Amino acid sequence: MILTVTLNTALDLTYGVPKLVPHTTHRVGGLSERPGGKGLNVARVLSALGHETAVTGFAGGATGTVLRELLADRSPEDAALDPGAARVPITDALVTVAGNTRRTVAVVDRATGDTTQFNEPGPLVTAEEWAALLARYTELLTGADAVALCGSLPPGIHVGAYAELVRLARATGVPVLLDTSGEPLRRGIAARPDLIKPNAEELAQLTGSRDPLRATRDARRRGAHGVVASLGPDGLLAVTPDGIWQASPPARVPGNPTGAGDSAVAGLLSGLVEGLSWPDRLRRAVALSTATVLSPTAGDFDRAAYEDLLPRAKIEEHPPAA
Amino acid sequence: MILTVTLNTALDLTYGVPKLVPHTTHRVGGLSERPGGKGLNVARVLSALGHETAVTGFAGGATGTVLRELLADRSPEDAALDPGAARVPITDALVTVAGNTRRTVAVVDRATGDTTQFNEPGPLVTAEEWAALLARYTELLTGADAVALCGSLPPGIHVGAYAELVRLARATGVPVLLDTSGEPLRRGIAARPDLIKPNAEELAQLTGSRDPLRATRDARRRGAHGVVASLGPDGLLAVTPDGIWQASPPARVPGNPTGAGDSAVAGLLSGLVEGLSWPDRLRRAVALSTATVLSPTAGDFDRAAYEDLLPRAKIEEHPPAA
Repeated sequence: MILTVTLNTALDLTYGVPKLVPHTTHRVGGLSERPGGKGLNVARVLSALGHETAVTGFAGGATGTVLRELLADRSPEDAALDPGAARVPITDALVTVAGNTRRTVAVVDRATGDTTQFNEPGPLVTAEEWAALLARYTELLTGADAVALCGSLPPGIHVGAYAELVRLARATGVPVLLDTSGEPLRRGIAARPDLIKPNAEELAQLTGSRDPLRATRDARRRGAHGVVASLGPDGLLAVTPDGIWQASPPARVPGNPTGAGDSAVAGLLSGLVEGLSWPDRLRRAVALSTATVLSPTAGDFDRAAYEDLLPRAKIEEHPPAA
Repeated sequence: MILTVTLNTALDLTYGVPKLVPHTTHRVGGLSERPGGKGLNVARVLSALGHETAVTGFAGGATGTVLRELLADRSPEDAALDPGAARVPITDALVTVAGNTRRTVAVVDRATGDTTQFNEPGPLVTAEEWAALLARYTELLTGADAVALCGSLPPGIHVGAYAELVRLARATGVPVLLDTSGEPLRRGIAARPDLIKPNAEELAQLTGSRDPLRATRDARRRGAHGVVASLGPDGLLAVTPDGIWQASPPARVPGNPTGAGDSAVAGLLSGLVEGLSWPDRLRRAVALSTATVLSPTAGDFDRAAYEDLLPRAKIEEHPPAA
């Protein structure tokens, strides 16, 4: 089983509007409502790849209830998009909190395809709720082949929370991937996760360098055993104990990059659990991530595109560092 | 008891953002969640004025549940704003539907105070659910001193729905105020409501004229016994069987006009039920409406401002029509 942790889950709403005009009233045309937060997106892709997956983190209030209902059902929307896909049900191991799970609203301007995003703050999580999460997580780790720690921290959670979760995974011998940003990333890296997957912006914020190779090496020196940097249309740069690779799609593709990073995480983790080589893990990650950009629904991947891209992803090995 | 009908209730979310920048991501600072839809706003003001009020219309799904919970509780936010106010509980006579009550999202740009609004479509209401509403409404009318029919129609409800509700009220002898727009207003007027309260835009759409006096008289000829047009900062123009009056605030005020029209409806209805003269009803409506613009929370009225404005509202009687 692969475990994903999403401390700040969200009910993701997508509003289609003909054109966003500030300071006016918009009638929302298309409306979609999905369970969100990076770790839940990762779990959805893992389940579509046929992996047993469990999710933990926090959910609460009426929005938390809707999120869990949507997580339990395969939505009619998903089924219509991907009728033949054999999905494995996702195990809901979320911890119930008193506060309300946040909503995010993505307003998609149909004239341009651009998205304007509004993210509510998460619920205030109490010390008792955090203790309950630690207990649930420790229990889940015993059955996990790998764990991904994903996204922002809700209010009330200390900035070293991911570092604590990284240490617990390492103590249990479960490979751990950390995908967050800012101070929680900085602290988490110091606890020596197996892998981090920052994007270019997160990497620059962490290291002060905008040179991907230099910044990625710096991130390893700070404690990450391996770093896979997601560089948008340029693909992925992996700096690992086994070598350095650049993985890129066969061509640049138009589309919505929302969730592309989460699909890359799912590709890396599933490849790790299946014992694939680094080049094969990266091939899968870059194909899934590109197929997500191509999908008409933000955060979903286009299965046919994925199967087409997989053999065509370009993998180049860098000479070892001097 | 005063009855308000809101066929398309909504869970109203207000998001405060430092500045709205299209095609970027915003962290929502202030978040408020309130029961919405025009008739629920009217009921909230009536209850704050000490009137027994019942609300009907449709509510369903998780958002409908939250709406009803918020309607039942006096929110901590309300209590903090208005600690001394004696509110009468609002009777929840909403009809449960299978679909989800819609959300509306108002994004308030704190730099300018401007609001950008996103309105979800309402739930699809079935013929059985509409029949249940008609039964509930007919029963409630027997105990009502007045009724307000407010807002848009959800999908599935026929365009003559308000006309049907107006006729039922008139058959029972209950004074009926209609506050809607477009074709439902046009059809509703033909059923001869006691009063309509269009704004300048709705009136122009109905009559083709932008001259308020001319358009208001035209609306009466179409079937409305009385018309009170809300003209924004210019106040109210009332054309009634008893005379024509212009009511205006003592001065123009800055603020958020959201809900000002609903407060005017509450002023008119409460004044009718209390047997006030037209000038006194209009004085109350204009003072409530101006105090709503002045309130820091959209849709609430500032009680101190209301009490200050009430004796200072300007009422001018027009000479009778030639």
